[in-house]
Amino acid sequence: MNIDTVNALPCEEFVNVFGNVVEKCPIVAAAVWSTRPFASLKASEAAVSEFIDALPESGKEGILGCHPDLAGRDLQRGTLTRESRGEQAQAGLDALESAEMSRMARLNGEYKERFGFPFVICARMCDKANILQQLSERARGGEGARRRGGEEDRPPASPGPRAHWLSGQVVSHLLQCKDSHYHQTYTWL
Amino acid sequence: MNIDTVNALPCEEFVNVFGNVVEKCPIVAAAVWSTRPFASLKASEAAVSEFIDALPESGKEGILGCHPDLAGRDLQRGTLTRESRGEQAQAGLDALESAEMSRMARLNGEYKERFGFPFVICARMCDKANILQQLSERARGGEGARRRGGEEDRPPASPGPRAHWLSGQVVSHLLQCKDSHYHQTYTWL
Repeated sequence: MNIDTVNALPCEEFVNVFGNVVEKCPIVAAAVWSTRPFASLKASEAAVSEFIDALPESGKEGILGCHPDLAGRDLQRGTLTRESRGEQAQAGLDALESAEMSRMARLNGEYKERFGFPFVICARMCDKANILQQLSERARGGEGARRRGGEEDRPPASPGPRAHWLSGQVVSHLLQCKDSHYHQTYTWL
Repeated sequence: MNIDTVNALPCEEFVNVFGNVVEKCPIVAAAVWSTRPFASLKASEAAVSEFIDALPESGKEGILGCHPDLAGRDLQRGTLTRESRGEQAQAGLDALESAEMSRMARLNGEYKERFGFPFVICARMCDKANILQQLSERARGGEGARRRGGEEDRPPASPGPRAHWLSGQVVSHLLQCKDSHYHQTYTWL
């Protein structure tokens, strides 16, 4: 699908195709649709980032809040989106042993308790050992988090930088995942 | 469920319960969650309206853009949310004759062509004859639309009033539906 075809899609079709570019937030695709035509794929990606940047801080938190837990309830119930199911399966999260499941659930809970939204990582670029390690470090802010400059993982206290940090979290995740959700969407067509 | 119980819900549960307060836009519930505690049900409703007001114009359009067509593809495929399925069935839209289906599809298309987003109405407060009549009037801007002050149905050209109009459209729909989506959600619990 080239950019002219994308630009010609009616809203419903556009949302049908790109609705999960931001997980469980089809409003992003529907909003971006009204800013078309896009000069290029890159321009359409930029429109997504700009829309997220323009959201109130609670909206940025809302995007993260809609994100499913890794190896969480959606995976167990079969209610994950196709994209997330594929990513979580690729990382081996659909075949955790009982002890791993319990550890993941406990750490997901600790992370949410600490930050107020779920742990988000590009699962298809990791394996389960790596995911568990990163989740553990970030949830508990241990040595690893400090080594990697743990401040990035912690929302700053003042509103301005916090909003900026939230945009950064969401947009970095999108960029990190662009070979999966976003670019795959184009490739699938 | 009283407001203290609502205030104590973790984000995932809150989104699970209230995620469809704005159809297919769980980001609204997830965003509003981060502004709790709410003093009352009324205060939580106000938080929803405030979040929508604070969205960029494209985001308000995005909310409308995510709304399913009446008697449209989602109803036919069985992919409507529980709330919308109930509403559309109550209005008799799940039992249209073939000619009515064609007319509804044609008018939905005309409405979207004219306004850029789907026709939204509180289906449970209407029957199919009334819905078809209102859709026809608004899509085509005929006598009825003018009689009811058709300008309300038409987004103004300048950005300020248009954004205001969009907020009005979304929030009026929410308020009109508060006995269904929003208040039912409380009642179901």
